[in-house]
Amino acid sequence: MDQTTTTRRGEATRGKTRLDDALLARLDAWWRAANYLTVGQIYLLDNPLLREPLRPEHIKPRLLGHWGTSPGLSFVYAHLNRVIAARDLDMIYVCGPGHGGPAMVAGTWLEGTYSEIYPEIGRDEAGMRALFRQFSFPGGIPSHAAPETPGSIHEGGELGYSLAHAFGAAFDNPDLVVACVVGDGEAETGPLAGSWQSIKFLDPVHDGAVLPILHLNGYKIANPTVLGRMADDDLVAMFRGLGWEALIVAGDDPMPMHRLMAATLDCALDRIADIQAQARSGAARDDAPRWPVIVLRSPKGWTGPKEIDGKRVEGFWRSHQVPVTDPRQNPAHLKLLEDWLRSYRPDELFGTDGRLRDDLAALAPQGPRRLGANPHANGGMRRPLALPEMRDHAVAVAQPGTVVSEATRVMGGYLRDVIRLNAAARNFRLMGPDETASNRLDAVFETTDRTWQQRIEPYDVHLARDGRVMEVLSEHLCQGWLEGYLLTGRHGLFSCYEAFVHIVDSMFNQHAKWLQVARTLHWRGPVASLNYLLTSHVWRQDHNGFTHQDPGFIDVVLNKKAEVVRVYLPPDANTLLAVTDHALRTWNRINVIVAGKQPAPQWLDIDAAVRHCAAGIGIFDFASNDQGSTPDVVMACAGDVPTLETLAAVSLLRRHLPKLKIRVVNVVDLMTLQPAGEHPHGLTDRDFDSLFTTDRPVIFAYHGYPYLIHRLAYRRTNHPNIHVRGYKEEGTTTTPFDMVVMNDLDRFRLAMDVIDRVPGLAVGAAHVKQMLRDRRSAHRDYVVRHGEDMPEIRDWDWPYGTAAATDTRSG
Amino acid sequence: MDQTTTTRRGEATRGKTRLDDALLARLDAWWRAANYLTVGQIYLLDNPLLREPLRPEHIKPRLLGHWGTSPGLSFVYAHLNRVIAARDLDMIYVCGPGHGGPAMVAGTWLEGTYSEIYPEIGRDEAGMRALFRQFSFPGGIPSHAAPETPGSIHEGGELGYSLAHAFGAAFDNPDLVVACVVGDGEAETGPLAGSWQSIKFLDPVHDGAVLPILHLNGYKIANPTVLGRMADDDLVAMFRGLGWEALIVAGDDPMPMHRLMAATLDCALDRIADIQAQARSGAARDDAPRWPVIVLRSPKGWTGPKEIDGKRVEGFWRSHQVPVTDPRQNPAHLKLLEDWLRSYRPDELFGTDGRLRDDLAALAPQGPRRLGANPHANGGMRRPLALPEMRDHAVAVAQPGTVVSEATRVMGGYLRDVIRLNAAARNFRLMGPDETASNRLDAVFETTDRTWQQRIEPYDVHLARDGRVMEVLSEHLCQGWLEGYLLTGRHGLFSCYEAFVHIVDSMFNQHAKWLQVARTLHWRGPVASLNYLLTSHVWRQDHNGFTHQDPGFIDVVLNKKAEVVRVYLPPDANTLLAVTDHALRTWNRINVIVAGKQPAPQWLDIDAAVRHCAAGIGIFDFASNDQGSTPDVVMACAGDVPTLETLAAVSLLRRHLPKLKIRVVNVVDLMTLQPAGEHPHGLTDRDFDSLFTTDRPVIFAYHGYPYLIHRLAYRRTNHPNIHVRGYKEEGTTTTPFDMVVMNDLDRFRLAMDVIDRVPGLAVGAAHVKQMLRDRRSAHRDYVVRHGEDMPEIRDWDWPYGTAAATDTRSG
Repeated sequence: MDQTTTTRRGEATRGKTRLDDALLARLDAWWRAANYLTVGQIYLLDNPLLREPLRPEHIKPRLLGHWGTSPGLSFVYAHLNRVIAARDLDMIYVCGPGHGGPAMVAGTWLEGTYSEIYPEIGRDEAGMRALFRQFSFPGGIPSHAAPETPGSIHEGGELGYSLAHAFGAAFDNPDLVVACVVGDGEAETGPLAGSWQSIKFLDPVHDGAVLPILHLNGYKIANPTVLGRMADDDLVAMFRGLGWEALIVAGDDPMPMHRLMAATLDCALDRIADIQAQARSGAARDDAPRWPVIVLRSPKGWTGPKEIDGKRVEGFWRSHQVPVTDPRQNPAHLKLLEDWLRSYRPDELFGTDGRLRDDLAALAPQGPRRLGANPHANGGMRRPLALPEMRDHAVAVAQPGTVVSEATRVMGGYLRDVIRLNAAARNFRLMGPDETASNRLDAVFETTDRTWQQRIEPYDVHLARDGRVMEVLSEHLCQGWLEGYLLTGRHGLFSCYEAFVHIVDSMFNQHAKWLQVARTLHWRGPVASLNYLLTSHVWRQDHNGFTHQDPGFIDVVLNKKAEVVRVYLPPDANTLLAVTDHALRTWNRINVIVAGKQPAPQWLDIDAAVRHCAAGIGIFDFASNDQGSTPDVVMACAGDVPTLETLAAVSLLRRHLPKLKIRVVNVVDLMTLQPAGEHPHGLTDRDFDSLFTTDRPVIFAYHGYPYLIHRLAYRRTNHPNIHVRGYKEEGTTTTPFDMVVMNDLDRFRLAMDVIDRVPGLAVGAAHVKQMLRDRRSAHRDYVVRHGEDMPEIRDWDWPYGTAAATDTRSG
Repeated sequence: MDQTTTTRRGEATRGKTRLDDALLARLDAWWRAANYLTVGQIYLLDNPLLREPLRPEHIKPRLLGHWGTSPGLSFVYAHLNRVIAARDLDMIYVCGPGHGGPAMVAGTWLEGTYSEIYPEIGRDEAGMRALFRQFSFPGGIPSHAAPETPGSIHEGGELGYSLAHAFGAAFDNPDLVVACVVGDGEAETGPLAGSWQSIKFLDPVHDGAVLPILHLNGYKIANPTVLGRMADDDLVAMFRGLGWEALIVAGDDPMPMHRLMAATLDCALDRIADIQAQARSGAARDDAPRWPVIVLRSPKGWTGPKEIDGKRVEGFWRSHQVPVTDPRQNPAHLKLLEDWLRSYRPDELFGTDGRLRDDLAALAPQGPRRLGANPHANGGMRRPLALPEMRDHAVAVAQPGTVVSEATRVMGGYLRDVIRLNAAARNFRLMGPDETASNRLDAVFETTDRTWQQRIEPYDVHLARDGRVMEVLSEHLCQGWLEGYLLTGRHGLFSCYEAFVHIVDSMFNQHAKWLQVARTLHWRGPVASLNYLLTSHVWRQDHNGFTHQDPGFIDVVLNKKAEVVRVYLPPDANTLLAVTDHALRTWNRINVIVAGKQPAPQWLDIDAAVRHCAAGIGIFDFASNDQGSTPDVVMACAGDVPTLETLAAVSLLRRHLPKLKIRVVNVVDLMTLQPAGEHPHGLTDRDFDSLFTTDRPVIFAYHGYPYLIHRLAYRRTNHPNIHVRGYKEEGTTTTPFDMVVMNDLDRFRLAMDVIDRVPGLAVGAAHVKQMLRDRRSAHRDYVVRHGEDMPEIRDWDWPYGTAAATDTRSG
């Protein structure tokens, strides 16, 4: 096809498909029905079919909703219905525009899905009344597409992620076509702007297709849009540059627009079919194919009032929300609203029972082909994940602290086997911003490659058209792709630098909210948990310095509902394995795993690790010397580096103060610290007290910002005695040990804390404290001179290990 | 100029400028010097000038740094030096690539800025040794451009924001040219992809120029880059579509590349001058001009080892970090490193004293024209902000609770006058994602417009080429532009939906870290605080529902250093005025102000508001009835809605339990709750105890997640008695009052909490509690039936107000 003509307002495609006028007229009627239902949802409490003249009491007291984007969304819905039916397509509809809720609900009601799922909203007049009433009404539904919307995998609240979600849904779904409407507001966001490049990660052989429809209605809330004001030439050039072929559909006269949209959709779907057929024939190619994108220019608030009170409304931002603002008080507004509603000619659309007329209803596809009923979007395509035996990957730990291992490297071997076992099922992907190898998960490359659709050079390594590893320097894309992938029934893990996962704080928030609501909907199947591995963490950012240090994602996560979030801080490789294995078996959650990649001593053998992780918290017996008695002090730790420093502090104390009774409590699952009433994993007070005592000092070395421990434990009996050390936003360019010293989380400081807080110790142990202080100073001098940590730090070994590695006591 | 030829490898420009071969040879020598210094920083502890053969002990024990991006950055540095000197340009250099630190440091050392600022790093052999040693060394400097780097306004840690920062710097700086190197890794991020559209917000008349240099070295950490593998045609098309004219400089042979880069820079700067001259001549235009962007394709690790251990290094991702990995142990590596260093011919570059040879030093511009010394980048261009009299905007509050006002609308009037007063100074901008009007700050449009450079239609409103309001549907751009604007000496405010400010959590984190470090550098001038107005907040998202509810940004903010962050929760319009006025006067901070936009009762007159905000916390005497005695209960509140519900609860309690002594404590400044030792605004324990008592129940109604109050106050005497109500992630589509009911923050619940917790009240006040419970149920019934709040809620008035609005007691 000739690029320049096909991209110009469909000229080249206009004659291609012979579209029946009668069909287009019915399609238009279906669209009018959807628009009628949209306006009804925004305005009407009663009189849904306008059987009597509209009166103020038929109008909702609070008018909350968004008209502007809706007619365009319904226009697309109607046309997708046609092509699904005509081509028997397996298609879902991702609706990006923020407040398109009423349009999506209208579409699913018209096709019958809505009433099947929500029988109280029937396909009759009473159901239409209920449909109208519930919208933006207490106990009802929000004004955007939400988990409650059938057929949706995308919440229309926060903007920017529709296209990433669409790609996630298409990966490993070779027969699926994901239509994705991108609003021109959303298109201004960074994450969306970056998402166009996703096309360079879509494999036409094994993945499905994404058909973006950039909907330029020209306006946001109170401004034109940047993309809406771009010239067609510039849009075509931009998309061409980004790897797409833009097909423009522009106008405001419904019937020509229907003809043009139908022809253009046919053209786009033919093009997709060609690309797939070509790729699937086994032909080699040098670069990513050029996929079609439809640019739909239509007026904002299309078919609504042209002017209100002398001001431009249709085709302007004034149509964004509720255009006719005062129909309850202002008779002219009431008249305007009634005329607007009647302009859709409801009598022609709905029968006397309020049901959509059969000839119009027949336009929609049937059964699971309906956009609201496609099981891909409703949690109905859950694909089981086979998991390897984690014991095969365990580090042999005969004595605690004597074996050195890199935790994430061990996990990499496990993930390699996850990928291997599920190679045929194609149901698992590993996402990351180009950090799989640097985060030491590179064993996965023994069995798979990175997905890459652009040119591959002979000297490239581990790039392939078809790979299980998705690497792109965009945390937004990693997160968005993974969300879309999980929500359509598959599995995955996102490995990220700890500090930079804050980039997706807001996406995490939205996904947690989605899960919280979705798990309450009986008709949505469960979806695999979103698993994060946060590594290259705060304590090992020596040369990267301050910008790479931020353990605060955990704080963001813990603000969400207990039922959907989990945070794990495994102290070594075997506990990381146990936690990973568990996380991959869970549903409807977000699991955050924080673990380092650097060589570090190992504490637990695999059996002990599994027991410890199942309990979530426990006493490290091998390190404690309080057997059979109440300890003088509890040394608690959560996180790998805090555990190491705590155990090193214990070794110093046991050597120099052998009579001191120390108990070491290690926390893997942060939620255990919360009261049992707040979180299902929370310890009972009795269990908490039995671990932490009711009155002994607790020196708690924590991976992140120290306040978090107080926030979790403030209601516990012994809380007044808990003294937390953690990250304090201190740390410039330094060495690994100096980093913990800067933040007072080092072994010397922790041991001094013990001396300061155990009653009666301050005087008797003053010489020990002085020794600790001296070693601490010696460290700083050494580091500044030599640029690396003192040998006594680097070469430190746990001195008390025997066969105790298997002993842990849970609370 | 003909588009197709100028964009092809500079063919059209090659002959344009007659560049002297001798000059280019010196330019190449300067570049070699910068590369030598970069390698030296990564590797050398000693022997900086290679006066003797390289030995293992000359090498750092830990090799931490990044070579790959550096030669390209130095290449650009050298060429910018030439054009600054030749054209007397006022230019700064924003360095996007993550780990370009050693290159930027090398450039500033060569030009002398570094030694002027850091005299201990002199321009001689000892200085060079110190320069090498400090890099990625304890107590030294990080491996990316940082606050410590002279001439930088951009930290190279987290990627994605360089171009937004560059635009922020250029706004209202008509004589400035901001050169901005965007790495091809960074270019994959969403925020950077969205930033190209910034050109549509740059006014060629009143703003300066941004010259982006997209540096395609082809690789990230372990992958090719998406943009690096794009064909030239596609890059040109993409940029054309985005509104730019791409000029490509590609190659790997230094001398032709120097010639091409010099010619292309001349071409780009000529083009910028033409655009500015044309626009400043007063000629009308229909659309944004098409500005030049340079695409620089050069090998990653250019001039470094071609291969190491038989593997491709130059022009591949293996050159990303430390290419020669083991020179201390492996003699072949030591030799490779020495050969590499000597390939730059240091003897030709540096004199025997280690100083750069004079003829090379002469290439750099002089004084403040040097890239490291430009005062725009070093906090040296602080422009004072004139502020209006806030009392002129005050709401008259004769009696508390009787006047209704919209807090942000009042603030809008104040901001209008800020803009008016500083119209000539051009030193203030208001940023927001298309929400200025919806957040009710639209009084600003009485004096200014929204900046818009694309086509303006006759029916558009408040769009202008030159406006103080910047609206784009990208929180990333709002934040990035504002950061760049502030860091170059100006002022501003970012108004944002509370829930969606999480989109920029990570940018906030990075800016806070920047400020924390920058304020310790004597040579950096202070910069105006970054002010957030978070409105359309969690409690008023009725129909938007769950996705729009998230008060957790405050939690993110409080993880940062006390000295740089402030959080204010003004309860009404006058306190919002007082807090805003204060925030705009501060430096080197981040001020977060949370305030609603809905009509709400007003509590304090302006004098009381100023006193109350200065104290940050105080007793609402007008609402308390504990005068002269210890109260039975303290009802604390922070935030506008919690304050309203608390006062409504107080009115219920005072009516039904008139003997109960209640004290109302209102918190504006959250930091007052922290111990004085933790935050400069923290109350002393004595003051805290005098407000909250040491033993009475405290019912604390808080705007956000309730844990935060515990986190702040857990060390206080009366903490065990503090019972916090806040947001619990509950809230679907509902009414304003129902929203607080869902989260147990409503007046009925708060009053019931008091009855439950005041000793002895449970029995005697059981009937009151029952009445409260009944009203609560009645509310729910009413709302579900009528869709709006009960009249007794909507029409509630504070019943006890006399002239007490001026009485507050601070702690």
